[in-house]
Amino acid sequence: METKNTKAFGAAAADASLKEMHIERRQVTPKDIEIEILYCGVCHSDLHTARNDWGGTIYPVVPGHEIVGRVTKVGNEVTKLKVGDLAAVGCLVDSCRECDSCQHDLEQYCLNGFTGTYNGPDKHLGLQTYGGYSEKVVVDEHFVLKVPTNLNLAAVAPLLCAGITTWSPLRHWKVGKNSKVAVVGLGGLGHMAIKLAKGLGAEVTLFSRTPGKSQDAKELGADAVVISTDAEQMKSVKGKFDLIIDTVPYVHDINPYVATLNINGTHVLVGYLGDLNPMLNSVPMILGRKSVAGSVIGGIAETQEMLDFCGKHNIVSEIEMIKMQDINTAYERMLKSDVRYRFVIDMASLKK
Amino acid sequence: METKNTKAFGAAAADASLKEMHIERRQVTPKDIEIEILYCGVCHSDLHTARNDWGGTIYPVVPGHEIVGRVTKVGNEVTKLKVGDLAAVGCLVDSCRECDSCQHDLEQYCLNGFTGTYNGPDKHLGLQTYGGYSEKVVVDEHFVLKVPTNLNLAAVAPLLCAGITTWSPLRHWKVGKNSKVAVVGLGGLGHMAIKLAKGLGAEVTLFSRTPGKSQDAKELGADAVVISTDAEQMKSVKGKFDLIIDTVPYVHDINPYVATLNINGTHVLVGYLGDLNPMLNSVPMILGRKSVAGSVIGGIAETQEMLDFCGKHNIVSEIEMIKMQDINTAYERMLKSDVRYRFVIDMASLKK
Repeated sequence: METKNTKAFGAAAADASLKEMHIERRQVTPKDIEIEILYCGVCHSDLHTARNDWGGTIYPVVPGHEIVGRVTKVGNEVTKLKVGDLAAVGCLVDSCRECDSCQHDLEQYCLNGFTGTYNGPDKHLGLQTYGGYSEKVVVDEHFVLKVPTNLNLAAVAPLLCAGITTWSPLRHWKVGKNSKVAVVGLGGLGHMAIKLAKGLGAEVTLFSRTPGKSQDAKELGADAVVISTDAEQMKSVKGKFDLIIDTVPYVHDINPYVATLNINGTHVLVGYLGDLNPMLNSVPMILGRKSVAGSVIGGIAETQEMLDFCGKHNIVSEIEMIKMQDINTAYERMLKSDVRYRFVIDMASLKK
Repeated sequence: METKNTKAFGAAAADASLKEMHIERRQVTPKDIEIEILYCGVCHSDLHTARNDWGGTIYPVVPGHEIVGRVTKVGNEVTKLKVGDLAAVGCLVDSCRECDSCQHDLEQYCLNGFTGTYNGPDKHLGLQTYGGYSEKVVVDEHFVLKVPTNLNLAAVAPLLCAGITTWSPLRHWKVGKNSKVAVVGLGGLGHMAIKLAKGLGAEVTLFSRTPGKSQDAKELGADAVVISTDAEQMKSVKGKFDLIIDTVPYVHDINPYVATLNINGTHVLVGYLGDLNPMLNSVPMILGRKSVAGSVIGGIAETQEMLDFCGKHNIVSEIEMIKMQDINTAYERMLKSDVRYRFVIDMASLKK
């Protein structure tokens, strides 16, 4: 298969800093779209994968799955976009397209395993996929999104992961004008959860461990902030919420949040992968028909729906722009939650 | 308030055997129905409450919340039933009727606390409520159910708790002809879950720890039995079920069952109150949008719906009839799961 040498930024090993490298991208096949990447968001998964925190990283790794740019080439069967259009790519670049999940626009739950935008099995070149920290990317049109033209393009990038990861549970659990939604954690995902839930008309509360984030949360659209370490404040919202979106990425006690769910309410985990420690107690779940659930990113149709909704409601991420060469420093700052609320790489910096 | 002295069977203390005693029942008020109790099912909760296993038992206690009988008197405002009609009472005899749950036919989730059929706060007489191990009971018509006349009346009794406890989650999670349902545990609740899920048209699998129950389960309507201690069998149903109804009343690992849920599937606990030990792992929940939930009994309208459904589909419980005087032995046998599948007391025995 014909390939094109492409400049990128990645890690050669788990303990190596990210630096400039070259990778091979396939030439467009009939269904492919080639995108010049203009901006790429920086997700916690990028860091974890680069450092092999979850195991399974194949090196070299080129992270990045919050990709926006402009179409530079299309295959002869492509109908979705044309050269010069804005385009975006999120966490998925392929899936089996045949299983029950794929047939129901749930590619993120592909029963044969979706192909991640980076570190996934590249069906075309046989190696791993390479992500958005690069000049260009070539993706099957099914997995390419259209981008509303009225938004700040750089601030659209994080919608492709942080946005859809919070949008999908909001939609699946049918959040609307009469919903009471709480968000646990105010980071990349949490700040999008507030904006999107508010956009859907819900009453939105932020759970935060410290009072320092109250003003920010309210500026983002939160109606209230509850300090989760304050027993009195927690008691005041007992039985209140229809849906809690829990974006916290590390182990934490979710029992106090379950107590704040209304009858039929759901606490949905989108950030933490691991054992629920301390143990979840079934009593309030049984006595209030409450659920604890999980959710991962979203399907392609749902991602497009989210982007269109953001275009209509003027919703974008709050970002801090960095140069590609600043990525290692950005990772360190991200580990300290020192970003409000998402780093986005200006990919023009990679050309220099 | 005028009362009537009524023969009953109950426990005077946590360590006392149940024996004959007399209690006071109120005379019917305008909205009340007096029922001569013909049969009363024996639920695990009866035993736990009699022995104060959960704390909070007020003595003397008269258990029994699977009550069927015949109307012997009605208040002058009663419209639901008339003298001579069959009638039933389940786990609830009152609730606030004003909260959001009550307004939505979810009396079992009454935000001000429902009144249990026994050991609940009696709003009329100021003491605790007394259950169905007695000659008669007086209940507000809102909490009295109509009984289909075509069914074996004694075998209807367990529907009032074991039946509705499994019916409610089947309906809430919208089980129907294309659903794949699994049931964990084959006891009073489990055998009703199989019959009701099958009645709703679902494909039904029983999870059992031992092979001995396979034939019984199939006779009850199960399409398949999976031995949960057999890793190969568990693997064969990975990702299969839309809903798992878990009737096991003691602590157990639910992670192996979560692995058998389909995308969007729910594992609902109806039997075990306590910490989920070992810890629940969030990974399969997140990667498959799976939920773990709880559910308790059901509302009054839903209980009537279940009884009507059972009448139409000729569904009753499998029972072993006992005399009132055999209750202490029955409790011991119940502790050893030595009953297929529910004891029902022939209340005529109390008259002797």
